This record gives sequence, C-alpha cells and structure tokens, in this order.
Amino acid sequence: MPHSNNGRPQTKANSNQSAANASGVKRPTRSKKNWIPVVAGILKKGNLILVGQRPETHTLGGLWEFRGGKIEMGESPEFALARVLREELGIEAEIGELKIACTHSYGDVGILILFFEVLFWKGEPKAQHHTSLDWVSAKELPNKNIPEANRTNLPRIYKAFNL
Amino acid sequence: MPHSNNGRPQTKANSNQSAANASGVKRPTRSKKNWIPVVAGILKKGNLILVGQRPETHTLGGLWEFRGGKIEMGESPEFALARVLREELGIEAEIGELKIACTHSYGDVGILILFFEVLFWKGEPKAQHHTSLDWVSAKELPNKNIPEANRTNLPRIYKAFNL
Repeated sequence: MPHSNNGRPQTKANSNQSAANASGVKRPTRSKKNWIPVVAGILKKGNLILVGQRPETHTLGGLWEFRGGKIEMGESPEFALARVLREELGIEAEIGELKIACTHSYGDVGILILFFEVLFWKGEPKAQHHTSLDWVSAKELPNKNIPEANRTNLPRIYKAFNL
Repeated sequence: MPHSNNGRPQTKANSNQSAANASGVKRPTRSKKNWIPVVAGILKKGNLILVGQRPETHTLGGLWEFRGGKIEMGESPEFALARVLREELGIEAEIGELKIACTHSYGDVGILILFFEVLFWKGEPKAQHHTSLDWVSAKELPNKNIPEANRTNLPRIYKAFNL
C-alpha cells in the first residue's frame, strides 16, 4: 500500500457511513463535519514554481501557497481552476492533468485539494486582491511560511510534479 | 480550454467567495450547500470493468456504479478507497493513479468523485452489504441503469482510463 503512511485516519472511521458509495448521495446526517473541495494550479517557469501570499486580513493571513480556490457548486474542477486563475492572477490558463489529491483537517473542516498541472497560459500572472506573488524553487519553498495543509503534503506534491 | 464544455456552471458563481484560495480554510458561511467527496476505483479484468448495484433500500437503489465510497475526515483519498474496497468487496487493493475528478449536483448537495486506477488486488471481489457485482464492457455499461453523476461524466471517465 504505497500511500498508507500518509493516509492514517486522524479520527476513528464511522463504519455506519461505509455503506455510502460512489455516487455518494446519502446525506452526511451523522456528522456535522464539512468538506471544502479546493483546486490548486502548479505553474512552472523553468525550475521555479508560482506561489502567492494570502492577504493579511484572511484566515492564515501572510502564508504562502499554490494558487487556487474553492470549487463552486456546478463547476467542474478544471473550470473552477481556470476561473480562479483568471480572477486571482489575471491569466487565461489551459488546465492540464490532475496529478494528486490531498486531504487535511482544520478542526471539523476537511480540506480536499486537487493539484493540477498548468502548462500554458496567456498573460503574465499579476497579484490581484492585495496578495503578493513569488516564483520559488522547490528547495526554497519549505523555508517560506506555508499552510500546514500544503507542508504536510509537500513530499507527495513534489513527487507527483517531478519537483 | 479543453474541459470547458463540461464545466459550465449550473449556478451563478458567487464572486464574494472567489477570494478563498488553495488552503480553503475560510468557512462557507454564505452557502448552505454541502460537498461530499467520494472516491471510486476502476477495476479492470481484460476489457471488462467492475460495477456494483446499490442496495434497494438506499438512495438511488438498484442503480449500477463504479465501486467506491465517501472519504472520512482524516483519511487520504487513497486510504479511503483501499478501506472501502476492503469493506465492500473483501479485497486488499493497491490504489494506483488518480486519473480524473468529476463533480455533480443533486439539489443542494455537491458530489466530487475522484476516480483512481486499481491495477492490483488480493482476493476475488465479492459483494458485501447485499449488493450485486458485475463485470461489464465499456460498451455495455451505458445500457445499465447508472446514476446521473456517472452517466454525465462517462465520456471523460472513458477517455481518462482508455476504455
């Protein structure tokens, strides 16, 4: 099981919920926990990766992370990422392959992050919404102040993207 | 934009939510909509794919679908899928690559399905929880009664898995 060391449950699995299956329409009535599905794009320029800084006024303000955002109801993940990159960076991006999905829990909120390749885009990424941008090497990134959801999954992300 | 025809929003995107980004910790306070992240495994035997029938007592009872289930809080997607395949099919599966992620809305509930390759497993898949199993060809599958969340995404799934 190649991924089992990263996947150990932090909470006891509720076996009552195991009957739900791949279309997942059964409401999560037994749990008040919420999931937030998020898409993130890995933009590379040579051996540098684009990261952005969260606005100070936001949760986890000042931290650096891969660019992305929430999937809105009714969007495909690829459509959501293209929209977010347009809104946040002012670029028209062609979304590539989905490489990896990572989970992280902040208390009773579960974050599911889908990481996509972004190989081509039109325009030069420019910070919107008062955030800053930086191009960093894979080696430098861990020295920056990054969210726990990114740090704990960094080895898997680097492997998936050959960083 | 290769995916845009499948990704057109069914609901108007709320631009107030666009500031949330890749670590997604901002609570979705503006929306009562819930997301259910689900993992599904594509098990192949020659040119046949494994599908299972939902129990009649469940939502969407009697419908056929790829085997999988909900991600529990604290699990990685791969860990969740290995657990569900153990519980539902009685097999020990080695989870392969994440190939594609699809979304579908049932009213105010959003389903996000992550489709993984399952190349190797120990044991013969056996129906647990009163479900039936079947091995079908990609050509036959659309003739079965399958959930809308699978049917609408079938072309993308087939392409991603070379079916």
